[in-house]
Amino acid sequence: MFPVKAYAALTPTSALVPFDFERRDLKEHDILLDIQYSGVCHSDLHQARDEWGGSIYPMVPGHEIVGRIAEVGKHVKKFKVGDTAGVGVMVDSCRVCKPCTDLTEQYCVEGMTGTYNGLERDKVTKAQGGYSTRIVTDERYVYNISDKLYLPGVAPLLCAGITTYSPLRYANVKPGDKVAVAGLGGLGHMAVKFAVSLGAEVTMLSTSKAKEADAKKLGAHHFVLSTDQAQMKKQESQFNVVVDCVSGNHDYAPYLKLLAVNGKLLVVGLPSEEPKLDPFQLVTNRRSIIGSMIGGSKETQEMLDYCAEKNIVADVEVIPMQYINEAYERMLKSDVKYRFVIDMASLK
Amino acid sequence: MFPVKAYAALTPTSALVPFDFERRDLKEHDILLDIQYSGVCHSDLHQARDEWGGSIYPMVPGHEIVGRIAEVGKHVKKFKVGDTAGVGVMVDSCRVCKPCTDLTEQYCVEGMTGTYNGLERDKVTKAQGGYSTRIVTDERYVYNISDKLYLPGVAPLLCAGITTYSPLRYANVKPGDKVAVAGLGGLGHMAVKFAVSLGAEVTMLSTSKAKEADAKKLGAHHFVLSTDQAQMKKQESQFNVVVDCVSGNHDYAPYLKLLAVNGKLLVVGLPSEEPKLDPFQLVTNRRSIIGSMIGGSKETQEMLDYCAEKNIVADVEVIPMQYINEAYERMLKSDVKYRFVIDMASLK
Repeated sequence: MFPVKAYAALTPTSALVPFDFERRDLKEHDILLDIQYSGVCHSDLHQARDEWGGSIYPMVPGHEIVGRIAEVGKHVKKFKVGDTAGVGVMVDSCRVCKPCTDLTEQYCVEGMTGTYNGLERDKVTKAQGGYSTRIVTDERYVYNISDKLYLPGVAPLLCAGITTYSPLRYANVKPGDKVAVAGLGGLGHMAVKFAVSLGAEVTMLSTSKAKEADAKKLGAHHFVLSTDQAQMKKQESQFNVVVDCVSGNHDYAPYLKLLAVNGKLLVVGLPSEEPKLDPFQLVTNRRSIIGSMIGGSKETQEMLDYCAEKNIVADVEVIPMQYINEAYERMLKSDVKYRFVIDMASLK
Repeated sequence: MFPVKAYAALTPTSALVPFDFERRDLKEHDILLDIQYSGVCHSDLHQARDEWGGSIYPMVPGHEIVGRIAEVGKHVKKFKVGDTAGVGVMVDSCRVCKPCTDLTEQYCVEGMTGTYNGLERDKVTKAQGGYSTRIVTDERYVYNISDKLYLPGVAPLLCAGITTYSPLRYANVKPGDKVAVAGLGGLGHMAVKFAVSLGAEVTMLSTSKAKEADAKKLGAHHFVLSTDQAQMKKQESQFNVVVDCVSGNHDYAPYLKLLAVNGKLLVVGLPSEEPKLDPFQLVTNRRSIIGSMIGGSKETQEMLDYCAEKNIVADVEVIPMQYINEAYERMLKSDVKYRFVIDMASLK
């Protein structure tokens, strides 16, 4: 067993506090990762505070994990000690259903095993996440990371990155396409970077004029103030793709209207109230709404390789572990550009 | 000018009554069609009664039109006198925008010209529909019809047929796919026939057990009572495609849940209240909701040729023009298998 230092939520209403526990011994296909950086995803906060229900305590959040391989099980093929590697939102799945054999394990028929806030497939061991010094994971759910990339900026690729990369690929975004991105946060800023890198003409949609300069710094070619009816009207039927990264409650109609013939609204933001959908807006221009959830093992590796090739990482603010409760408060106010990443050296 | 006998709605609340008017002289690319059969679509009733707003009276409904070419303009290429031909939901469009040049004129940027209840593109002439003895239409929006097919059954192909054929093709339904069809009416019965003809394994979803025998007669392989929670639960994540032909108010959630990874909910039924959409159901299995509206000139001809090859027509009840008001009442009670078609000889 490997002793681990971590930060955990002990109840839905208490602050995160230091927490020690043990990781399992390595099985034949497991690796031990010394965690160097762990991204802070909004869903960490949702789950730490039991906002989606069913949370299990004590909970060590974190599913944007990068570090160095410290040990390998005897049948591990992909990694050797010293490699830089990452763990994302899932650490296991049934491995035998069609989605699993297609390497889209995020849609596993039995349900994937989340990196934290659940049980591993033995139904006994608590899965605990990346706000910790070490993690033990089957190599199938661990990814190679190029040493060329700025490592703190790689961590958020494991969730925010793949969550936006996967639907842009599924929608076949290509050079010359017009792509709008709604919501400039952790997901939105990655969506802008990926869409630009794929050759699209990218427009940032935001309710705040103050975001225009930031959006352009990220590579967006245009900015539209989404609260300005006249500006939005001009954009109707202009886009091949709109990426909806807004997690606040909102209707789909204003985004649907922007879509040209065969246009696609990619939904990755998850509002808590169910948005209404005007079917007349949907049949106009043969529009689609497509949901998407992270990515499978194959596509996650592909995304990381693509980022290495294109030198894409997330924009991050590196923090010590001890700052996590302040970071949560600032995240709630969208006061971060665009992701907090914990330097785990602060716990060692 | 060509004198025409017809039936028209004069106000939103009065019954349809006999109505005489004149069609325009033939322009160079126009044809004159002697109408033999005209299908009765639910949207005829919606518009005759101004249920969607903006109706123009007197209104001659009807956009499922078949007959024989009686005269041709001097530059007409596709038709000669005596040919069997059809006119559908649109009779013109701008012809220069991208959707028009792509032959998806139903998504014309300026808006297509409907066959009735609107003005032609001269913004003066009232467009009047198929509950009439003759129609004058530009040949671009007129289709060749094989003489092999039962002509009254062809009329509904021009709306109900293309409305279901087009999204099934767009979703690339192929042999072995599992397709569910919700709603067994004019649209639903065509969706079943097309999905079966494309080689799919077809399940009828209905709130009425009484429809099981009918669905199987149409070729459906399975039947699921959609009000039975246990039956619906068993079908979760099983389908590649669900075709939603339900025009009554309903939620999308029960249909979304049926979709497997990459599954598509094809929306062609248009409820008057906006359905809610659970984004968690959408991101699960990377599901899509896709709207679709009739089909363009190229695909409409393709669909009619496909029907000739596969011997597909709608199941119809042929009625005289004078029966139209009773037919509307029966249509409101879904008391028709599955489309009324007016024999226009009854007006001559």
